[in-house]
Formats: sequence, C-alpha cells, structure tokens
Amino acid sequence: MDFASTIRSIPDHPKPGILFRDITTLLQNPIAFRAAVDQLVSRFAGGRVDCVAGIEARGFILGGAVAHQLSIGFVPLRKKGKLPHRTLAESYELEYGVDSMEMHVDAVSSGQRVLLVDDLIATGGTAEAGVRLLRRAGAEVTGAAFVIDLPDLGGADRIRKMGVPVQCLVAFPGH
Amino acid sequence: MDFASTIRSIPDHPKPGILFRDITTLLQNPIAFRAAVDQLVSRFAGGRVDCVAGIEARGFILGGAVAHQLSIGFVPLRKKGKLPHRTLAESYELEYGVDSMEMHVDAVSSGQRVLLVDDLIATGGTAEAGVRLLRRAGAEVTGAAFVIDLPDLGGADRIRKMGVPVQCLVAFPGH
Repeated sequence: MDFASTIRSIPDHPKPGILFRDITTLLQNPIAFRAAVDQLVSRFAGGRVDCVAGIEARGFILGGAVAHQLSIGFVPLRKKGKLPHRTLAESYELEYGVDSMEMHVDAVSSGQRVLLVDDLIATGGTAEAGVRLLRRAGAEVTGAAFVIDLPDLGGADRIRKMGVPVQCLVAFPGH
Repeated sequence: MDFASTIRSIPDHPKPGILFRDITTLLQNPIAFRAAVDQLVSRFAGGRVDCVAGIEARGFILGGAVAHQLSIGFVPLRKKGKLPHRTLAESYELEYGVDSMEMHVDAVSSGQRVLLVDDLIATGGTAEAGVRLLRRAGAEVTGAAFVIDLPDLGGADRIRKMGVPVQCLVAFPGH
C-alpha cells in the first residue's frame, strides 16, 4: 500500500518552514486505515503481545485499532495531569523546555509484553519517555510501531538503541 | 458483560464531591475492551455506517477500535487549534464558560452516514456539538455510542431529541 499518497502535507504548519504530515486523510480512508493497522502489527505477529500502549492523542486512534486487531487491552500514555488515578511520570524534551508523560501505576503488570504505538516518530523524545515508563512498571517493550518516520531526526534509531524493534510504514526523508 | 465492574470509581476527582468514572481499567482488560466495541456497534449493525467520528481524547481509543471493527474510516473531532487543515467549529458550554470543537472541512462528505463515539455522555454538550459539526458538513448522524451514561445529567435524551439513536453500555444513576 502506498501510504504516502494518503497522507496530506501542509506547508508552514505549525510555523513557517515546517511541512506538516497530516495523517487524518489516511485515517478517514477505510482501505488505508485497515492496511495501516495490519502492517503496524505484522512485524510483531510472531511473538506474544499482551497489550498496546498508545501515546496521546493520535496514537490513541491507531493504538485502539491495533489493540482491537490483536484482541488485547489498551493503555493510554497521557499528557501531564490527565489521568485520574496514581501515575508514574517521565519527562521529555521539547524544542524549548520539557514536558512530561504519565501512565497509571497499575496500567501494566510486571512481565507484560507491550507494543508502543504512535502516529509519527520524529526525534523520538516522547517514544523514549513511553519506553522508560513501561519499563519502570516492569513491562517488556516488545516493539514500537509508527505510521510515519522522519528519519533525518533520528527517532527510530534512538528507540532501536534502547533494544526495542521499530516498525514504520512510510518515511519522509528531509521531512 | 458486567461493564460496571470493570470501571474504576475515583472519589473527589477532579474536585471534591465528584465521583469520577475511570474507563482505563475497562480498556486495559482485553475481554471487556472487545465486548465494549462489539456492543457499541451492535445496535447499528443493521444499517449502513460509512465512518466513525471520535471525540478527543478517550473517544479516539474506542472510536479507532470501532472503525476497525466495521472496516470503515475514522474522523477526529478535536479541541480547538489541534487540526492542521481548514476546519469547521462548534462551541459548547462548560461548567464555567464555553469551548469549541473542530473538524476538518473535508473530513466527511455529503450524505455519509456517521457513527459518533465517545467514552461517556454527561450533559451531552460535546456530543451535541459533534452532531452539529457533522450535519453542517452534510453528513447524516446515524447514531451515537457511549460506554458510560450519566442519565441524571440528561445528555443521552438531549441527543435523542436531535433525532439521533443513542447506544450506552452502562448507566450510573446519581453519578
């Protein structure tokens, strides 16, 4: 499937010089959406996966579908202050400053094999925070799956260096 | 399925006197998650549904899974300023003040039959804004599906009065 043709590119968003990759046109296309879910999981289908962790907010859409495809549970990794129960938190760098990501302390159990899902990997800061959160809770991060890779920003390599297999469906070099 | 037993209740969240219904414990339970998706769509399985519109953020998780179950596309209804392309907006009331919800102008096409999905319906303000957005774009809202209904707040009746069939899986009277 040619996923690139289903993704809309928006120049100068959110600021001049940035070419934003808009995945909503892929999601609203029934054939592309189903094919994306199939390919996100294909690499990990041979091993056991116990649950999906999706990163807020677009990772919720894909992660919910991936969890449904695999008939497993879903765990949300959310922006600070959004989860109602006790949480673990990990900070990550932004272009200017830092932010943090949270997960419920009892979202995963020790030894669970978790697949991390998000729409896009750029520098890999949020994905790395997700891997750290899951590992702190005792989970094994069995893989990380993204629709879009911006390889010049090095995020996928950064996650692979943590020992996590990475699956991406389409790369936009030079982004 | 006894969905109520899979939902965690958190007293005094986000403020004293509010009993918060935490759906993350349902989502992380593989059997409850799959059963919830099945029952969200069961009422609408007899008619044509062309796409799912999910309300940010927890509606993305369930909506993504529902769209996958029906092999149809997904459209995100997002908080103000989050969508990169041109949008339609509808405001809705909060406890103090108003907020607005946005949808891409080309997210749905005229005559498309859309199922609205969110985790919970309380006063129905966000769901009503979602129905108005979809109708302005020419779509037919063929139904609205929620895991949790807080019937004392009247939201489900409010959406039914707009001519939209409503499916809820568990009601918490008195919330």
